[in-house]
Amino acid sequence: MPYPASARFDVGSLSIPGGVSVVWEGTRTPMLERAVGRFRARLAALGGIPAPAADAPGAATTPLHIHVGADPAYLSVTAREGYRLTVDAHGIDLAADGPAGVLHGLATLLQLAQAGPQSPAIAYVRIDDAPRFAWRGVMIDVARHFMTIETLKRQIDAMEMVKLDVLHLHLSDGQGFRVESRVFPRLATVASHGQFYTQGQIRDLVAYAADRGIRIVPEFDTPGHAFALLLAYPDLASQTPVPGDRHQINVAAINPTLEDSYRFLRRLYGEMGHLFPDRYFHAGGDEVSPTQWTKNAEIAAFMRQHGFATPQQLQAAFTARIQKILQDQGKIMMGWDEITEASIPDNVVIEAWRGSKFIASATRAGHPVVVSAGYYLDLLQPASEHYLVDPLDPHANGLTPDLAEKLRPKLGAMVDALKLDPSATMSPAQDRLVMGGEAPLWAEVVTDEMLDARLWPRSAAIAERFWSPASVRDVPDMYRRLAVVQDELCVTGLQAQANRYRMAARLSPGDAGPVLTLADATSPIRHYGHNHSAAHGQKGPIVQQMNTLGDIAAPDSAGAERFSDLARRYVAGDHSVRPVLEAMLTRWRDNDAAFQAVSAGRPILEDARPASQELKALAQAGLDALAGRKGKDWRAATGALLARQDQAVAASANMVVSHTVAQPPADLLQDITPGVRTLAGLD
Amino acid sequence: MPYPASARFDVGSLSIPGGVSVVWEGTRTPMLERAVGRFRARLAALGGIPAPAADAPGAATTPLHIHVGADPAYLSVTAREGYRLTVDAHGIDLAADGPAGVLHGLATLLQLAQAGPQSPAIAYVRIDDAPRFAWRGVMIDVARHFMTIETLKRQIDAMEMVKLDVLHLHLSDGQGFRVESRVFPRLATVASHGQFYTQGQIRDLVAYAADRGIRIVPEFDTPGHAFALLLAYPDLASQTPVPGDRHQINVAAINPTLEDSYRFLRRLYGEMGHLFPDRYFHAGGDEVSPTQWTKNAEIAAFMRQHGFATPQQLQAAFTARIQKILQDQGKIMMGWDEITEASIPDNVVIEAWRGSKFIASATRAGHPVVVSAGYYLDLLQPASEHYLVDPLDPHANGLTPDLAEKLRPKLGAMVDALKLDPSATMSPAQDRLVMGGEAPLWAEVVTDEMLDARLWPRSAAIAERFWSPASVRDVPDMYRRLAVVQDELCVTGLQAQANRYRMAARLSPGDAGPVLTLADATSPIRHYGHNHSAAHGQKGPIVQQMNTLGDIAAPDSAGAERFSDLARRYVAGDHSVRPVLEAMLTRWRDNDAAFQAVSAGRPILEDARPASQELKALAQAGLDALAGRKGKDWRAATGALLARQDQAVAASANMVVSHTVAQPPADLLQDITPGVRTLAGLD
Repeated sequence: MPYPASARFDVGSLSIPGGVSVVWEGTRTPMLERAVGRFRARLAALGGIPAPAADAPGAATTPLHIHVGADPAYLSVTAREGYRLTVDAHGIDLAADGPAGVLHGLATLLQLAQAGPQSPAIAYVRIDDAPRFAWRGVMIDVARHFMTIETLKRQIDAMEMVKLDVLHLHLSDGQGFRVESRVFPRLATVASHGQFYTQGQIRDLVAYAADRGIRIVPEFDTPGHAFALLLAYPDLASQTPVPGDRHQINVAAINPTLEDSYRFLRRLYGEMGHLFPDRYFHAGGDEVSPTQWTKNAEIAAFMRQHGFATPQQLQAAFTARIQKILQDQGKIMMGWDEITEASIPDNVVIEAWRGSKFIASATRAGHPVVVSAGYYLDLLQPASEHYLVDPLDPHANGLTPDLAEKLRPKLGAMVDALKLDPSATMSPAQDRLVMGGEAPLWAEVVTDEMLDARLWPRSAAIAERFWSPASVRDVPDMYRRLAVVQDELCVTGLQAQANRYRMAARLSPGDAGPVLTLADATSPIRHYGHNHSAAHGQKGPIVQQMNTLGDIAAPDSAGAERFSDLARRYVAGDHSVRPVLEAMLTRWRDNDAAFQAVSAGRPILEDARPASQELKALAQAGLDALAGRKGKDWRAATGALLARQDQAVAASANMVVSHTVAQPPADLLQDITPGVRTLAGLD
Repeated sequence: MPYPASARFDVGSLSIPGGVSVVWEGTRTPMLERAVGRFRARLAALGGIPAPAADAPGAATTPLHIHVGADPAYLSVTAREGYRLTVDAHGIDLAADGPAGVLHGLATLLQLAQAGPQSPAIAYVRIDDAPRFAWRGVMIDVARHFMTIETLKRQIDAMEMVKLDVLHLHLSDGQGFRVESRVFPRLATVASHGQFYTQGQIRDLVAYAADRGIRIVPEFDTPGHAFALLLAYPDLASQTPVPGDRHQINVAAINPTLEDSYRFLRRLYGEMGHLFPDRYFHAGGDEVSPTQWTKNAEIAAFMRQHGFATPQQLQAAFTARIQKILQDQGKIMMGWDEITEASIPDNVVIEAWRGSKFIASATRAGHPVVVSAGYYLDLLQPASEHYLVDPLDPHANGLTPDLAEKLRPKLGAMVDALKLDPSATMSPAQDRLVMGGEAPLWAEVVTDEMLDARLWPRSAAIAERFWSPASVRDVPDMYRRLAVVQDELCVTGLQAQANRYRMAARLSPGDAGPVLTLADATSPIRHYGHNHSAAHGQKGPIVQQMNTLGDIAAPDSAGAERFSDLARRYVAGDHSVRPVLEAMLTRWRDNDAAFQAVSAGRPILEDARPASQELKALAQAGLDALAGRKGKDWRAATGALLARQDQAVAASANMVVSHTVAQPPADLLQDITPGVRTLAGLD
């Protein structure tokens, strides 16, 4: 995962008792040697062999021939990423057009390796592979909750293993400005609460990512989402910033009528542009609140004086000047799709987050586009929903017509803009402008310890969407492979499983099992419903540790997916799976007794007791179905039970617009519902 | 844990919504401020609150008054370790005689903190505490399997949290010499396989430990256990070392008749003594193989010439010279109890590993003693067995008369030396010479990823033995607290749970659950039986990754202990626990179906299938007992089933002397056996 463009498996496998010894053909660089070092360590971790300290001549190593040419475009959007891989009885042969191809080939090899009794083995195979899209990214918001360098490095390691190649860092927002500026030191002392990256840390992180074929694209969001910056430099604000003001945190914007604002941003972007060497520089541009400007008398006067009829027009003028600043500094500007309102050069990259309309309009205007609509990981949708969104199929993107209708009463005209545009078909020329996609993870309710489990495994499924042929879209098959990949990521260093255990153990030290069993069978409510709970419960500090079942439960339940899979096999006639089905259901049912016991006197867990009882009821219904206890009353009760779960999922879809929709207990959805429905014969 | 010398709990608890702000009274040092920083971070991790970046004036912090005096003896065996702690409605008051007491008081505070709905809370309490023994150590063998600095630092952090104060590092052995020497560079290039600590890493590690009140006592083992060193400097060998020779690895010894040997060790120990500033320096001295010397004609001639009748006498002469070398370098020599054969000054510290006889004889001769007999963690005994060994009660130590009798056929005269000496009673003066104890973890079958789970939680139980009053010895109560402490250690950074998951996921990627369920209900066979399996299966490299169920299963099963506890409550009449008992048993029984499925085609797991079936049978017997299905045939069958488990445990006791005793499938003991016996009414 991602599945290769072309793979042919042969019978047999190559045993690797003592690791590999590399035979280099072509360019051999320190960077490639470090890549082989990582490969060896990961192979050792996955295969259960000791990592050899170095090429040991005479040891029983397996030859790995690497043919690679130089690629001047390495670490750019035109890097040569293709590779060909052959594993047979003679050894391993990896041929790549450039260093990126070597990294990808090694990542594929790792996924082919399986632990054996004495040594790992790799199946015989011929693979010819290259990505569908050049831009395969994730975005991590380090402004809402700060993430440590160590945590970011773990994500970069995982990204390398699934061939993602862009890490977009959202480095400033209302809650904080996260990079040390030597030109504007108050950004660290006033705007960061002490949580920022030093310039040395940034250089180290950029080099770490570059070694793994990953470009870091920085984002410093303006003119909106600028509260923290404006606390440090209030003269640039449109409305005087007041520390701790909850509304301003989200809406405060830079004053675009002041020359000082442009002088400030020219110097700041110049400094940051040196620190982040990538050609692309993300300047934000999203969600500017019109009243920030219209309610400032001087700005309103400026607008009248210069003929700006709307705040949008004023923002367009701002955008054009920022683009010019970045262009002067040798950068290609990138921004959220709001910036398409401005008259900007073709090469500005538009990040389309509000649906297909903006993919179509931006490409029609000749802009390269990176698609993030449909991949918002903070919506807490399961992997399958993102997986089926294709960057080139606008009708699969973002808002559906149904959801757009629901949004209208709340958002009015904005929905009309968002609504699926029937004319949003794409010409082949427009398709070619879609550089790829990005999965954003906004961090309102994601702490450092939660990041691994919120970003993964879903990013691996999305990586497959961005890399593999569009025809690869079998969801059950994806889930089977996703569970394996997630474990491989954890074995090689990801802390997703480890940190979820820690969160559960914090709530129930000495007996975390019942908490984890409930969390493993459930998922948090979607579409920002869980954010609203956090916001309502929020007291004291702005940055809050997330500490509930809804924070521990993952958007996908690997166990529930496996259960659904087995349930489908069972009703299709494969009764061999029945003992495992019964064991799973019995465990979920019986967990309630243990959960009730450990939750006593612990308010966070007590809140989740009804969810535990609901899981028990669902599991009992599944057991009844397996045992053939399906009378008329049972059908009615089970139907009602299942309908209640469906309503909770459906209500999730409204949560983006309503804080008041009824939420299920402890913000948990019951993931075993589809499998129980299958067993009950009610689907 | 360790339980305080004196604790009085009051009704109520102190909520800590925003962390603590420290009011210093007395000495305030950077080292103490770092300790408070760690306390804050750990409180945040355990309590589910964000770690505040710094003392924020005006924030809702709780006052923590720290009164502390300077202690010139900090980081020595006479350090002032006592503290008094008061938690009441006014805040927290911690008074300590020196920095060590502050560290201990903060460790106690962390264990008192509990996660609350909005913030952690600490129960009102008055504690007056000080340790029973000054020397509370663990020994980690980094020679057999190399452990990274990061892994060692995790252990040091955990040690601080349970008030252990000595980390004895076994830095050289047949398999490797693990510290860079600038005087003897071949120790790194030839004797380490590339796996060694640089001098910079050692200095950093020593400082890291010192910050946490932990002394690092280095051991460089001579004259035996020196194969790696002798490969690098073969002129000093008693028998020419041959690379890869499996026998020599264990027995090769330095030639004690050469002046060059002493010149070499004087320079080496001088260099290492500077690197490790502790006053104590462990020179090994254990297990010298007599034939290494007697079969060397020149050594034999030397012995005749100088009147050494036995190799032991020759070793005594060697020991005396080494002691003199170390004394000249300002060090106090420490060694395994074999060195008591020599005429050495009173202040040499004897590490008594071969039982009570040597505690008695060494203290009779006036030596300070550190007791390791009874605390060998690599014997894979459960925590309870070590917990009940008291350093001052020789009859509880090491070999029982029974085991000594069993050993006699194999070890002959050595057993007579080991046998419990009826005269081994201790006078009060002798008792005072027992400085404390150490739990050694030899690493023949412990890899870096296994270290956390092999050292913990058992070291926490042993820490209580070394710290708390001798009267604290309620085993079920210890196990209840141990499970909580282990989770607290994992929440604050220990990788025990995380790495066990990784090991299970490696064997069954994508569905590790059935492997973990089996591992969680079992433990590896004891007394080196599992080492023998590893040795027999060993092929290729000397250093081998451990990769079986026996490596994943822990010596203690927290789940099985909880089950035993509930079973006792149930038969005592508390039927409220029945649903949880049924759920546990059902899960263990049903796990077999899933385990059989995931093990197919995976030889390591296939080996464990009979163990899974045995667990199923035991669980079924427990369920039958609960349901009252206890007919005559059932009694007979269940009796036989339980007896089989007892035999496996009993056989373990012979494994130290026999490689051929029948071992249970996959080296696994069934830990739910006692609980099932209780339910079955057969105990």
